[in-house]
Amino acid sequence: MREVFQQSLREVQDRLVEIASLVESSITAATTAFGESDVALAEGVIDNADEIEEMAATLDQLAIDILARQQPVASDLRLVVGALRMSASLERMADLAQHIAQLARYRYPESAIPKGLKKTFARMGALDVEMAGKIVELLRTQEAAVIDEVRDLDDDLDELHAKVFEKVLSDKLANDPTGVVDATLASRYHERFGDHAVSVAKQMQFFLSGTLE
Amino acid sequence: MREVFQQSLREVQDRLVEIASLVESSITAATTAFGESDVALAEGVIDNADEIEEMAATLDQLAIDILARQQPVASDLRLVVGALRMSASLERMADLAQHIAQLARYRYPESAIPKGLKKTFARMGALDVEMAGKIVELLRTQEAAVIDEVRDLDDDLDELHAKVFEKVLSDKLANDPTGVVDATLASRYHERFGDHAVSVAKQMQFFLSGTLE
Repeated sequence: MREVFQQSLREVQDRLVEIASLVESSITAATTAFGESDVALAEGVIDNADEIEEMAATLDQLAIDILARQQPVASDLRLVVGALRMSASLERMADLAQHIAQLARYRYPESAIPKGLKKTFARMGALDVEMAGKIVELLRTQEAAVIDEVRDLDDDLDELHAKVFEKVLSDKLANDPTGVVDATLASRYHERFGDHAVSVAKQMQFFLSGTLE
Repeated sequence: MREVFQQSLREVQDRLVEIASLVESSITAATTAFGESDVALAEGVIDNADEIEEMAATLDQLAIDILARQQPVASDLRLVVGALRMSASLERMADLAQHIAQLARYRYPESAIPKGLKKTFARMGALDVEMAGKIVELLRTQEAAVIDEVRDLDDDLDELHAKVFEKVLSDKLANDPTGVVDATLASRYHERFGDHAVSVAKQMQFFLSGTLE
């Protein structure tokens, strides 16, 4: 019985790593699709989001079964409860990657990136990709040090998000409402992606230490 | 023991109703603050979000304690697991009300609503308020019929969200990048608020029927 239980917990962890890896692939592809107006790549990201949704639902069911049958306590309980929350965050991250890819597809063959913001969005995308990679690492290694790295990356992302608004509200984009909308949404999607990565990191902190701060 | 357990479950439900009621107050105030550029009201919404965050954390702790000590099964387990997810959605709804209020505060004494969109945003706000009210009702009465009402309201909201983009991308807002940004963000916040209300409704469906569809 104990062995079955340990195996279920390992399966929770493995599934989290698997979903997070797919989220990492999605945001990587979404960033490239957005930067290079690559419609085929964008379609792939959109398909991925459905797959991740299914994987998250399967993980949730596994977690609920463990709660019902094996009544975990202490850090085991925190892992299972954390998995339910992390699956929701990872699913949202996949949705946001999908939204970024959709912007690229809507504007194709034009670019969804307004002039003067190409470098900023490349940097935001790179930060999101790096955060997603750190989440995979954190879920796999359970190393608490990675949690702070995720938070630091999110601070950089928030700075860039503020910069996008400065730029968008400057005169340069007057007469380009489409560019203003795209930049506003894309920047918001990138920023939210980072917030959800921080949520996952916080859940891992809760699992590892029993506190959320 | 059984009585203590039933009491804990009632407390979970009561706390959900309490948080949802505060979310309803928040979105009501945020909608008025946004529509009438009422800064004092906006500040109240911003304070509320912190209170709701604390209430959600307390509810999460209660749910985790119940899982650890009372090992619920079947619909009791679904309520407790659902509470963990619903608290996250309700907290996000409070954040979104806060974001709407913040837009009003940033633009004060100007209006955050670009010309020609006042009625649309009043309608979006009214829909969000109605959805929040339905969520309170659903949590209190556990009446499955309310779930579909929430979904119907969300469909109306999505239509308005699409309309805002049409308007924003028409010529009328050229030369008003601030208006385009505000309208884009406000519309997105309203739409996401509705999505989270639907998430709460889905969790209640899961609790009541054992399925998510």
